[in-house]
Amino acid sequence: MLFAHLTVVGIGLIGGSFALAAKQADLVGQVTGVARSEATRQGALEIGAADEVTEDLEQAVAQADLVYLATPVETICAQLRTLGPYLRPGALVTDAGSAKAAVMQAAQALPRRVTFVGGHPMAGSEKTGIAAARPDLFADSSYFLTPGPKTPPEPVQQLVELVRGVGARPLVVEAERHDRLVALTSHLPHLLAWALCATAGDMEDPEALAPYLGGAWRDVTRIAGSNPEMWSDILRANAGNLAEALHYLSAELGLATERLKQGDRGPLLAWLQLAHNTHERIAES
Amino acid sequence: MLFAHLTVVGIGLIGGSFALAAKQADLVGQVTGVARSEATRQGALEIGAADEVTEDLEQAVAQADLVYLATPVETICAQLRTLGPYLRPGALVTDAGSAKAAVMQAAQALPRRVTFVGGHPMAGSEKTGIAAARPDLFADSSYFLTPGPKTPPEPVQQLVELVRGVGARPLVVEAERHDRLVALTSHLPHLLAWALCATAGDMEDPEALAPYLGGAWRDVTRIAGSNPEMWSDILRANAGNLAEALHYLSAELGLATERLKQGDRGPLLAWLQLAHNTHERIAES
Repeated sequence: MLFAHLTVVGIGLIGGSFALAAKQADLVGQVTGVARSEATRQGALEIGAADEVTEDLEQAVAQADLVYLATPVETICAQLRTLGPYLRPGALVTDAGSAKAAVMQAAQALPRRVTFVGGHPMAGSEKTGIAAARPDLFADSSYFLTPGPKTPPEPVQQLVELVRGVGARPLVVEAERHDRLVALTSHLPHLLAWALCATAGDMEDPEALAPYLGGAWRDVTRIAGSNPEMWSDILRANAGNLAEALHYLSAELGLATERLKQGDRGPLLAWLQLAHNTHERIAES
Repeated sequence: MLFAHLTVVGIGLIGGSFALAAKQADLVGQVTGVARSEATRQGALEIGAADEVTEDLEQAVAQADLVYLATPVETICAQLRTLGPYLRPGALVTDAGSAKAAVMQAAQALPRRVTFVGGHPMAGSEKTGIAAARPDLFADSSYFLTPGPKTPPEPVQQLVELVRGVGARPLVVEAERHDRLVALTSHLPHLLAWALCATAGDMEDPEALAPYLGGAWRDVTRIAGSNPEMWSDILRANAGNLAEALHYLSAELGLATERLKQGDRGPLLAWLQLAHNTHERIAES
């Protein structure tokens, strides 16, 4: 057992799945689940993700050896700024937010007697909530850990073991590098999926599109079903990196549009071929 | 049986799957497969998609009651302009090209003794070639048929029955409307998938991205594995509609970027919420 008492704050899809997996692997003892919604708290008890549930955040974190913040990223930042006085000495705090630099910044408000290591599981789905939680959610997916420059190695190692125990691949990285890369591989694809749906809404009656929806549409827009409130937080928390990625994307779209309008086969094909080759290199890496 | 002799020109994924399904449903008699590649011809014989194969296009279409052109869309147009003299009187010609107005235009070169009805199965995958052909490729997918203004109803009805027989949902539409809608639901998503890969190539070493690739990346970019040669033809054949869709998309991306940079929660969330609602309306339609 790595942690005698785990408190999961925001015990939905991610927090609930993490608790389930950690309990099944016998890596944690008692689990306290915190949620504002009564239905979420009942759901967490029913599926066995938590041994007890509460809406009293301050009391729940006071007993924990490990506090796992799985709320939306702006809420994580707010909680990191206010929870300090309630944490017990030596407690380890981590989170599951998709943007890390903003979280690391907020974590500087924590007292010295606790340790913070940022976390980001590259798992989840367009579904949310405790009802979708499952212990294999993290299987074979990357799980980033972002310690600060002064974090001692022992708590990082404990989290590496815990992450491995829930079935994920732990990767210790700098928060800034993490944010730059997820802007490209996750935040930009989400924004594109929504932009494509918005474009469809601008151009046609949504109901008229039904017979024209094939696999391409369904794949590219699946993540547009994700929760807008959660994602407005994530995108804003990584706005600088995302804006830079959008700048490059706009340039590529401009180039493709120009070559498309120009009409010759060669230039458009060359652009497609290069993009296709990059896709293959990424897929094979 | 609807057609005693079917000749499939370009017997790869689409043409091979169509022939397999039509034979299994006893809707066609003899099937001749045409391909330039020896491996494709052998593959078509081996999986039973064709009873005989040849690379002699002119001789192969001369015997057919139904000619099914499943080559890339620019090749379809070129073939429609040259095959006329070889077709037997009363023959029905159709195709499987993803853009229809250009094909309908090229079909005007056919002699009056044959009938042309454009076709577009909304099926397929990023895989190509006869090795990927399967009789259930069209199951539960839309299959558009685009007759010309003077096409008599009987051949259209024959194709409707054939399309239903291979498991697809036949929809008779105008070529222009078809092209406008597939620009949005298929051609634009493909271009976006390639633009996203191109952006990744501009910004990072492709190999460095591996641990950062989750479900969002894989879904949005899966179709970037499609064949660039085939797709440069499709995109160019529908360039006008695609350029218009790209114009609206750029406007939406510009709006999102502005709201992202501005920093307040409300405006970005409102944009995401509207796009999300459009996604739900489309998905439920």
